[in-house]
Amino acid sequence: MKASQIPGVTEHLSEEEARAMDVLVPIRTFAKGTVLLEAGAVATASYYAISGCVRLYYMVDGDERTTAFYIEGQSIASMNSFVNQVPANHYLSCVEESTLAIWSYTSEKELFRRFPRLESFCRVSLENDFGQHQDLLASFITKTPEERYAELIATRPELLQRVPQYLLASYLGVKPESLSRIRKRMVRKRGVLGTDIGAIKPRR
Amino acid sequence: MKASQIPGVTEHLSEEEARAMDVLVPIRTFAKGTVLLEAGAVATASYYAISGCVRLYYMVDGDERTTAFYIEGQSIASMNSFVNQVPANHYLSCVEESTLAIWSYTSEKELFRRFPRLESFCRVSLENDFGQHQDLLASFITKTPEERYAELIATRPELLQRVPQYLLASYLGVKPESLSRIRKRMVRKRGVLGTDIGAIKPRR
Repeated sequence: MKASQIPGVTEHLSEEEARAMDVLVPIRTFAKGTVLLEAGAVATASYYAISGCVRLYYMVDGDERTTAFYIEGQSIASMNSFVNQVPANHYLSCVEESTLAIWSYTSEKELFRRFPRLESFCRVSLENDFGQHQDLLASFITKTPEERYAELIATRPELLQRVPQYLLASYLGVKPESLSRIRKRMVRKRGVLGTDIGAIKPRR
Repeated sequence: MKASQIPGVTEHLSEEEARAMDVLVPIRTFAKGTVLLEAGAVATASYYAISGCVRLYYMVDGDERTTAFYIEGQSIASMNSFVNQVPANHYLSCVEESTLAIWSYTSEKELFRRFPRLESFCRVSLENDFGQHQDLLASFITKTPEERYAELIATRPELLQRVPQYLLASYLGVKPESLSRIRKRMVRKRGVLGTDIGAIKPRR
């Protein structure tokens, strides 16, 4: 696949824009476990996930704390580091083999200069991502780990199938043992929770 | 003041853009305590703070949980609600009398249509705000209330002077009594913490 052929993008591009995108926005497949960005390094690129799953996490006293899982159709940006070209305070790594469109700092500058319409397209997408990020913060602040787990089941059931339990625990801010207890409590409380939770086998 | 005269904005505008800004982006002063947005309502506007202080908070089981204080020079956006015109999940209210530029949903559409350059300006500003928001989430996730208080002293000392203690406590996610204990512990540990903390008198 080329960048200009990404669903949701392709229909908005002129021929000239499509050609520039294909040259300036390469697509690469990264093996599971690949670290795309390390804390302390400068983010030279943002990404758009075509397939796979990328995780954003912080190291806190030797423990990983995950704040996001990005899957196909989502943008992945270490915004402060990327925009201001300063060291990042977090890590990005591939939970699965991931095919990503690579939106580099220098390509962005060139694309926006040559095609102002692309900048408008990105502004809209950025606003939506920002809105989701505000909701993410709200979820961390206002909900218990159990409530956040129930939210995941309701809104992103595919994640529960794809992400190992110990990483889900790191996202909920609990130890893996606690996540097992939460799961058992929820099954007891609600009976069978539907195929999503019923089908999960711990993958660790 | 008119919208076109806002420092950091004015030097980028043509005469025509400035005239349109002044018509489409009114500036209003809101009394302390004014609620700009209620959970359940749709955000019809974003704001840019010229002076004053606005707080974003969630209601959790009858308790307020504050996630942000915006002061002069900062943008205030309930992004998901504003962009998608859906009900907000949080409140915005004025901690102080606040003078705000009002960026309405309909004005944004018109300004961007007529002046694409303004959209580029907003995209850059949006990226910076997004970066700060990612760092805010990181701070909530990775730091203890005591560490976050120390961070406030280091990075936003003016807030400690302006915001009542019980609201600071709601931002740190602790009861006001706990904030008093944190303050005492920090003073004991470090001796005098400098003028910022030394000068604070609880305002509640």
